[in-house]
Amino acid sequence: MPVIRVEMLAGRTDEQKRTFAREVTKLACETFNCKPDTLHVVFSEIPRNSWATAGTLQSDKS
Amino acid sequence: MPVIRVEMLAGRTDEQKRTFAREVTKLACETFNCKPDTLHVVFSEIPRNSWATAGTLQSDKS
Amino acid sequence: MPVIRVEMLAGRTDEQKRTFAREVTKLACETFNCKPDTLHVVFSEIPRNSWATAGTLQSDKS
Amino acid sequence: MPVIRVEMLAGRTDEQKRTFAREVTKLACETFNCKPDTLHVVFSEIPRNSWATAGTLQSDKS
Amino acid sequence: MPVIRVEMLAGRTDEQKRTFAREVTKLACETFNCKPDTLHVVFSEIPRNSWATAGTLQSDKS
Amino acid sequence: MPVIRVEMLAGRTDEQKRTFAREVTKLACETFNCKPDTLHVVFSEIPRNSWATAGTLQSDKS
Repeated sequence: MPVIRVEMLAGRTDEQKRTFAREVTKLACETFNCKPDTLHVVFSEIPRNSWATAGTLQSDKS
Repeated sequence: MPVIRVEMLAGRTDEQKRTFAREVTKLACETFNCKPDTLHVVFSEIPRNSWATAGTLQSDKS
Repeated sequence: MPVIRVEMLAGRTDEQKRTFAREVTKLACETFNCKPDTLHVVFSEIPRNSWATAGTLQSDKS
Repeated sequence: MPVIRVEMLAGRTDEQKRTFAREVTKLACETFNCKPDTLHVVFSEIPRNSWATAGTLQSDKS
Repeated sequence: MPVIRVEMLAGRTDEQKRTFAREVTKLACETFNCKPDTLHVVFSEIPRNSWATAGTLQSDKS
Repeated sequence: MPVIRVEMLAGRTDEQKRTFAREVTKLACETFNCKPDTLHVVFSEIPRNSWATAGTLQSDKS
């Protein structure tokens, strides 16, 4: 049942997403006692010019 | 007022989205007693390498 | 696979949510060609003092 | 701490996002008494064929 | 059209939300050239035991 | 930078959330090469009468 949404800056590799999806599914199933086939992990990759921290776009930071 | 967000794998056609938007707006207005012009339907289309189920990226499934 | 999230003002009944969940699942499966058991509908009910339109909280509108 | 997510039709310029991010960060820090470096602004830009209002895709409206 | 979602720790007053909603609507309409009556601001107030930073729940921080 | 949102049925304990937050932060920092103090984990706990799977509210399932 849980849906885990990872919102992060764009640019990670499929291999990083593959590893994270596998490991976070194990972690969530152990911790929250749910079955893997009901668990979704969705990556939302945000371009640097669409994410600001402390009022500044990431694309404007060196 | 309701905002209906549909998060799904990328690849559906505009015609499918057109049909769903029209029909879900009718359904929501009838069921929740709201006016169509205040109802938004937003599709969030996720690439197959950004959605994992049971720990495996959709792009890695045959 | 699709996750349908309905963000709306709090106050609807379980019967309204039951009806909408049943019908939107049928509609989505027909339109997007997916299986019902992979489809989730999540209602996010927002209190009137946490939703503003045109700059005014719903709780401040008559 | 706050995360401010702006979901809007695609097509705005970086300059518009830069201005909004700067000003909304000031506004949120003053109003909610939080520090700028803990505040994130994330823009989610939706294509016109993925946003429907009153049952019609924006891309189908003149 | 824009939907502005503010995800923050629970505990702010209606007056703070009132002020922010009014001012962010003005800012967004000026910056993004949209009409106030199509702009929604939704506050999602998260309890301290449901928000973790640096691996620690806010409720566990002094 | 990443914001990890966990949307799940209400009812988990603080201890389960504490464990998951700690471990997922380690996992994300190792896998995505980011710093813990920029990583947020937000739990969104959904009542059983607000989550439907296969067209049926969880609260209507035995």
